[in-house]
Amino acid sequence: MPYTDDSINHILQRTVDELSDTQRMAGLFHQHHDGDPLPSIPVLQEIIGLCRAVLLPGYYGQDRVNSATVHFHIGVEVERLFTLLTTQIEAGLCFGSDGADGATEQPCRHKAAELAAQLIAKLPEVRGTLATDVEAAYLGDPAAQNYGEVISCYPAIKALTCFRVAHELYQLDVPLIPRILTELAHSETGIDIHPGAQIGSHFTIDHGTGVVIGATCIIGHHVKLYQGVTLGAKSFPLDENGNPIKNIPRHPLLGDHVIVYSNATILGRVSIGSGAVIGANVWLTHDVEPGTVVQR
Amino acid sequence: MPYTDDSINHILQRTVDELSDTQRMAGLFHQHHDGDPLPSIPVLQEIIGLCRAVLLPGYYGQDRVNSATVHFHIGVEVERLFTLLTTQIEAGLCFGSDGADGATEQPCRHKAAELAAQLIAKLPEVRGTLATDVEAAYLGDPAAQNYGEVISCYPAIKALTCFRVAHELYQLDVPLIPRILTELAHSETGIDIHPGAQIGSHFTIDHGTGVVIGATCIIGHHVKLYQGVTLGAKSFPLDENGNPIKNIPRHPLLGDHVIVYSNATILGRVSIGSGAVIGANVWLTHDVEPGTVVQR
Amino acid sequence: MPYTDDSINHILQRTVDELSDTQRMAGLFHQHHDGDPLPSIPVLQEIIGLCRAVLLPGYYGQDRVNSATVHFHIGVEVERLFTLLTTQIEAGLCFGSDGADGATEQPCRHKAAELAAQLIAKLPEVRGTLATDVEAAYLGDPAAQNYGEVISCYPAIKALTCFRVAHELYQLDVPLIPRILTELAHSETGIDIHPGAQIGSHFTIDHGTGVVIGATCIIGHHVKLYQGVTLGAKSFPLDENGNPIKNIPRHPLLGDHVIVYSNATILGRVSIGSGAVIGANVWLTHDVEPGTVVQR
Amino acid sequence: MPYTDDSINHILQRTVDELSDTQRMAGLFHQHHDGDPLPSIPVLQEIIGLCRAVLLPGYYGQDRVNSATVHFHIGVEVERLFTLLTTQIEAGLCFGSDGADGATEQPCRHKAAELAAQLIAKLPEVRGTLATDVEAAYLGDPAAQNYGEVISCYPAIKALTCFRVAHELYQLDVPLIPRILTELAHSETGIDIHPGAQIGSHFTIDHGTGVVIGATCIIGHHVKLYQGVTLGAKSFPLDENGNPIKNIPRHPLLGDHVIVYSNATILGRVSIGSGAVIGANVWLTHDVEPGTVVQR
Amino acid sequence: MPYTDDSINHILQRTVDELSDTQRMAGLFHQHHDGDPLPSIPVLQEIIGLCRAVLLPGYYGQDRVNSATVHFHIGVEVERLFTLLTTQIEAGLCFGSDGADGATEQPCRHKAAELAAQLIAKLPEVRGTLATDVEAAYLGDPAAQNYGEVISCYPAIKALTCFRVAHELYQLDVPLIPRILTELAHSETGIDIHPGAQIGSHFTIDHGTGVVIGATCIIGHHVKLYQGVTLGAKSFPLDENGNPIKNIPRHPLLGDHVIVYSNATILGRVSIGSGAVIGANVWLTHDVEPGTVVQR
Amino acid sequence: MPYTDDSINHILQRTVDELSDTQRMAGLFHQHHDGDPLPSIPVLQEIIGLCRAVLLPGYYGQDRVNSATVHFHIGVEVERLFTLLTTQIEAGLCFGSDGADGATEQPCRHKAAELAAQLIAKLPEVRGTLATDVEAAYLGDPAAQNYGEVISCYPAIKALTCFRVAHELYQLDVPLIPRILTELAHSETGIDIHPGAQIGSHFTIDHGTGVVIGATCIIGHHVKLYQGVTLGAKSFPLDENGNPIKNIPRHPLLGDHVIVYSNATILGRVSIGSGAVIGANVWLTHDVEPGTVVQR
Repeated sequence: MPYTDDSINHILQRTVDELSDTQRMAGLFHQHHDGDPLPSIPVLQEIIGLCRAVLLPGYYGQDRVNSATVHFHIGVEVERLFTLLTTQIEAGLCFGSDGADGATEQPCRHKAAELAAQLIAKLPEVRGTLATDVEAAYLGDPAAQNYGEVISCYPAIKALTCFRVAHELYQLDVPLIPRILTELAHSETGIDIHPGAQIGSHFTIDHGTGVVIGATCIIGHHVKLYQGVTLGAKSFPLDENGNPIKNIPRHPLLGDHVIVYSNATILGRVSIGSGAVIGANVWLTHDVEPGTVVQR
Repeated sequence: MPYTDDSINHILQRTVDELSDTQRMAGLFHQHHDGDPLPSIPVLQEIIGLCRAVLLPGYYGQDRVNSATVHFHIGVEVERLFTLLTTQIEAGLCFGSDGADGATEQPCRHKAAELAAQLIAKLPEVRGTLATDVEAAYLGDPAAQNYGEVISCYPAIKALTCFRVAHELYQLDVPLIPRILTELAHSETGIDIHPGAQIGSHFTIDHGTGVVIGATCIIGHHVKLYQGVTLGAKSFPLDENGNPIKNIPRHPLLGDHVIVYSNATILGRVSIGSGAVIGANVWLTHDVEPGTVVQR
Repeated sequence: MPYTDDSINHILQRTVDELSDTQRMAGLFHQHHDGDPLPSIPVLQEIIGLCRAVLLPGYYGQDRVNSATVHFHIGVEVERLFTLLTTQIEAGLCFGSDGADGATEQPCRHKAAELAAQLIAKLPEVRGTLATDVEAAYLGDPAAQNYGEVISCYPAIKALTCFRVAHELYQLDVPLIPRILTELAHSETGIDIHPGAQIGSHFTIDHGTGVVIGATCIIGHHVKLYQGVTLGAKSFPLDENGNPIKNIPRHPLLGDHVIVYSNATILGRVSIGSGAVIGANVWLTHDVEPGTVVQR
Repeated sequence: MPYTDDSINHILQRTVDELSDTQRMAGLFHQHHDGDPLPSIPVLQEIIGLCRAVLLPGYYGQDRVNSATVHFHIGVEVERLFTLLTTQIEAGLCFGSDGADGATEQPCRHKAAELAAQLIAKLPEVRGTLATDVEAAYLGDPAAQNYGEVISCYPAIKALTCFRVAHELYQLDVPLIPRILTELAHSETGIDIHPGAQIGSHFTIDHGTGVVIGATCIIGHHVKLYQGVTLGAKSFPLDENGNPIKNIPRHPLLGDHVIVYSNATILGRVSIGSGAVIGANVWLTHDVEPGTVVQR
Repeated sequence: MPYTDDSINHILQRTVDELSDTQRMAGLFHQHHDGDPLPSIPVLQEIIGLCRAVLLPGYYGQDRVNSATVHFHIGVEVERLFTLLTTQIEAGLCFGSDGADGATEQPCRHKAAELAAQLIAKLPEVRGTLATDVEAAYLGDPAAQNYGEVISCYPAIKALTCFRVAHELYQLDVPLIPRILTELAHSETGIDIHPGAQIGSHFTIDHGTGVVIGATCIIGHHVKLYQGVTLGAKSFPLDENGNPIKNIPRHPLLGDHVIVYSNATILGRVSIGSGAVIGANVWLTHDVEPGTVVQR
Repeated sequence: MPYTDDSINHILQRTVDELSDTQRMAGLFHQHHDGDPLPSIPVLQEIIGLCRAVLLPGYYGQDRVNSATVHFHIGVEVERLFTLLTTQIEAGLCFGSDGADGATEQPCRHKAAELAAQLIAKLPEVRGTLATDVEAAYLGDPAAQNYGEVISCYPAIKALTCFRVAHELYQLDVPLIPRILTELAHSETGIDIHPGAQIGSHFTIDHGTGVVIGATCIIGHHVKLYQGVTLGAKSFPLDENGNPIKNIPRHPLLGDHVIVYSNATILGRVSIGSGAVIGANVWLTHDVEPGTVVQR
């Protein structure tokens, strides 16, 4: 029996009613209070763009910039970054408190502004670290022609500009926002670094698609990863209800000057000693002595 | 000999003529009839956004929403979803029929509207299933702070909102559109699920980059995959012309409560019994008994 | 002690000063000369869209097109492509010369226009090769319904439209731009092909996420790769300063009709003979005879 | 008593209910049938832009154009003009029939396409007439430097490109759309020409703000108006219900080579003979012999 | 002597310094406090669009709407209108207090929300009055084909939707915003109505360009104006400093059923009695008895 | 006989051919040379916005600004203004030379940059004059609440920001661009001031719709105009070919402290002495002694 226009309209209306039944939405419905800012993907993407423009002037951002005008540009960008970050951090404070665990946190525009200013105060240090990452990527890739190519193209630099900013927000206990930022980089580059990870200077990742770095990883200086490397958890203890216990150290520790080749998988709270080399496709769940080469 | 402006103009014109020679375009040229709607990536992205806004109100969509106004928002979104889906399904009916096999199908706005309404009527059920996926992701990840974080950030939820809608369209025999939808999710998340796959409730994927789930997979309830897992075909029979025979079951069957760790590869029409655990980087082309743990 | 508005303003201003100190920016600051065009991601994305519209008329591009009007559309698109390419190539000539190695190259609008015209003159040939890639993707995937689906959805076709154009620019010694183009495709598809690679006709990649093809690879005709395959470098000689020597052949050679299954890793300047089949998850650093099947 | 959040929400909801009461909307509510196109201001503005680009190539439109490529540009623009005009004419056929007089007209995509093609077939003639308008504006203004300035800047040319196209649509009995087009030009230029007016060649208007030309005006060749001139109706006969009778000739007739200076007002079905000059601020409700000068 | 790049840069930098000298900016610089909303032209244009969509459903707004869905659309539009109005009223409260008179007013989000809700509560009444304006325009113009044309095209309706909303805000003592709203309508239509004017039902303006209605006008029911009519002030008393005294009644009073023809000028606190007719181009600075016809 | 699809296509193609015949385009076709910048309405609108933001910081522009950051904002805005102005002045130099008079002028990016810098160097003086205009508008209107309202809303200020900048460009002999700028203000406000007019300080226009100020007007200080005032040419001498002779003084001279009320028309090279008052609707073609009041 063919559908009539009336029967189609009836279907649509009935479905709207079913979908609007808030009793049946469980945790899938987020109510907003008037005036609460919303976490906003386009705003967070603008924040990423502003961080890149401020940290790497002339490479990112839409404007020409030279040594006579760089001060003006950074001044305007930092002001806008402060404004946008404040709304998004406030949104995270409101939004993050909503959900399965019923926690509530007093949203607070002033607290959000404080946190935004604290993040911005960290940016010179973040730039210092990123400079070491750029150097590492340039020196580590025979195909790299110059710093400009590395900064403009390399997924590792895109992922690390996001991660290093998100990590500072994570350190400041800003909820939700750091995670959205690293997921945006994950979507852009295929590199998934949890904002809680601790990563030293001169860090680089070649190609990068499929790399996973877990929340409790601690990584030294001068470390290099290739595409497809997982630094993950092996298993995790459950509480009395059978749910995973949160916040337990469960990801690898990597020393300085470690190299992990493509598609290697390192699972659990294991230590990879400084100077160790882990071969491609290796599957590893135990400690490795400094300087060791582990091959498949 | 340097190029002159005239020689450049001559090159451009000659190339335009060569590129416009329809005799030499083979299957690479798609002619449109006047008035036919076109499959449109921006429209399909808006459709994905509307589905997410309707299924997960307050988490996706640009508007504030609360229990007093959720009915209005869903009403407007469902109406727009119906309008856009109708044009895209019609485009799929027109467009899908064009190509190497020469099949033709009568395009039909009314049929497209019927199919759009049937899809929409499935959305309450889709939301019910997605709720179980969100629960599974939350419970399965010690790093997840609350439902809000899971719904806002996790690639698995982004991929599954697309897949579960695309799968309903696939079940309705809508051509082309389901595949474009899952490819948009693939591009966004690195998770490639064919819309033909059948996937039970409480399904989750951790990190997700590089996951491939083939067209004829059948997956039970409470299954969890990690990044880089392939559920693929081993080989496929060829017809008398040496071309692959279409639509033959050729991908794995997974029971309930199966876990597959990162970068494992399961190929062919094999059965992985309920409760089985497949370790990271395992390569598997044979059946696995229920409850078995397969390690490298 | 809570932050006051004044102390926040003080923090912001001090940070702006620190971030604007050009003495401390090292290689992270790119100065622009007035009038120099800037490499622009949105413009390069439009260039990719124009190439796809010109090469695959009716499948890409926003306009309806039929045999009566295809000449007009291609004429307008080629003219715009020429204009945009000229600015971006000029930007590459300016920009690529800036960086760690201190090289300088005379920017030149006329040279950029010449190179843009030379690229455009190659497009008919590029279309011919892409037609073989489409055919290979269609014949190689039992799930493909018709050419339309392959051209509209398959990541391999998206990656190869970018790569084959970027490779022509690379052959013309255009700096930077080819690399940005292939990184845009990498971000969109998870397939990372260096523009320097040489790839024959009838090439296809299934699913594709995580594929890496290095700068000095040479790949024959009728080759098929699956997701997660790496064709990489094993190690590379260092110069007297411990830096990698640029431009040394260091990636695999693949003959005709080679198949490499998912997540296989082939490293170094090894030869994979025609007709060889490399199994999933294989790790390979030596030559393979023609016709050999290598399994894990 | 201060408002609470609850009382505000209560006000909003009650107002939504009142405003949604379709019984009380009288003629102020326009219902749409599914699939009917809507008259769209942005689309009509694009139509105006396309007409200007096609009629005055190189002056309007966003693209560079030269004699080698003008054919391509006009081909693409005419195709898009045809597509957009068809939807808007169809919308006019649907929409115009709705309202106080209860008339209904069968909407018809094919009829709309016919009318769009008929309009397009008139464009070469419209261009011929516009060329005389440009000449008249250039010759009549000592401040005009060249044709380029007249075509790019003069409000008269903007208003006449709209009017001359809208008049052709009016002649084809397209409802609503011609009127919206001339109102868009009215908003842009302050020149209000009813699409029903008949206007000869070499017509120009200096400055133009406040000019009104009524629906039944008939204007000869080589006529020039200044700002603030009204060619209006004096009064109009009422029918038995006291409503104005539609479509009665009620606006002035102007011969050839007439000049009307600023803010003059000519009302009613009067004849202004060829070569007459009407002075600034004159108020005129009677016939004027050819060659007469009427001063205040 | 030709300019060098250096001399140009020097000029630019010196000018920036001069322009940034806040000591010399007098009243031309508006400082913002962090977090204060800004009056925003794009937001106010969206507010106008929302008011039109809510008041005249199906004629304005981008969405299809029918009797089954009008409730949803108005619900969503009213919610968004409330949100946007609240920010703009708050901006008006902050912004309006800044300037030459040094007044300060406590900005207050809650007060802004109250005022926004009060404005919204007036909208049903505003719609009732607009319905009489539409009727008056339709009946008064022989060229009008139906209500749809009047509502979609007539500048009077565009100006009156803005004015009637702005007048309600003015009555609520909202600073600045009502004036910006009527200036947006002035720019769009050439009709300049001060939001303080009091205007009865069944009001219409034909063509409208150049109409000016002053802040203290009081206009009865069934009044009709033509283009170029000024209802202005003749002169105004000065205070001891020679500045005009604010808020003194100084514009005309018009009774019911008054008609004022094009370009007539009525100045000062004069009374135009009910039923009076003022001819085109008349200049009038004295009272007119009811029923009188005043001609030039 | 109904149209078929084929006959419609035939009509479209024939019309494209007719419209593309460059032989028949006369002066209506503007050919572009590759690489020439185009005058661009959107860019010129951005230029107007930048001038307003720089001249009236905090009132125009999208950004918050305060005394700590105003230097950054103006620095960035001046840099962008310089870049955009350079392209548009260059476009004017190319474009203005094309047309009826056959003149050619060597386009020159460097000359354009010089002229742009010279314009920018004038901006502090322009701001000084605008400050007197704002003061005049505020003091002259009893309805004005404060400077903020005047600067944000008054059409006179919008028109004068454009005019005063365009006049400086006109003084620098930049072709075409000054005229497009004042026409943009004409369209926005209904106030048409030729960029060649010379206007003193403390100038204001009330309401403004329909005001026309001709190219050779010279206006003193403290002058006030009302809506609809024309300062025009009476007639102009013709050359031997019957064409108007360009650049002859032909518009009124107004002394200081002159007031001209609404819709008054002053034509020809007449002198209106300081302190004169011209009444509404007056029509005037002779000199007026200082201090005289001219009434109708």
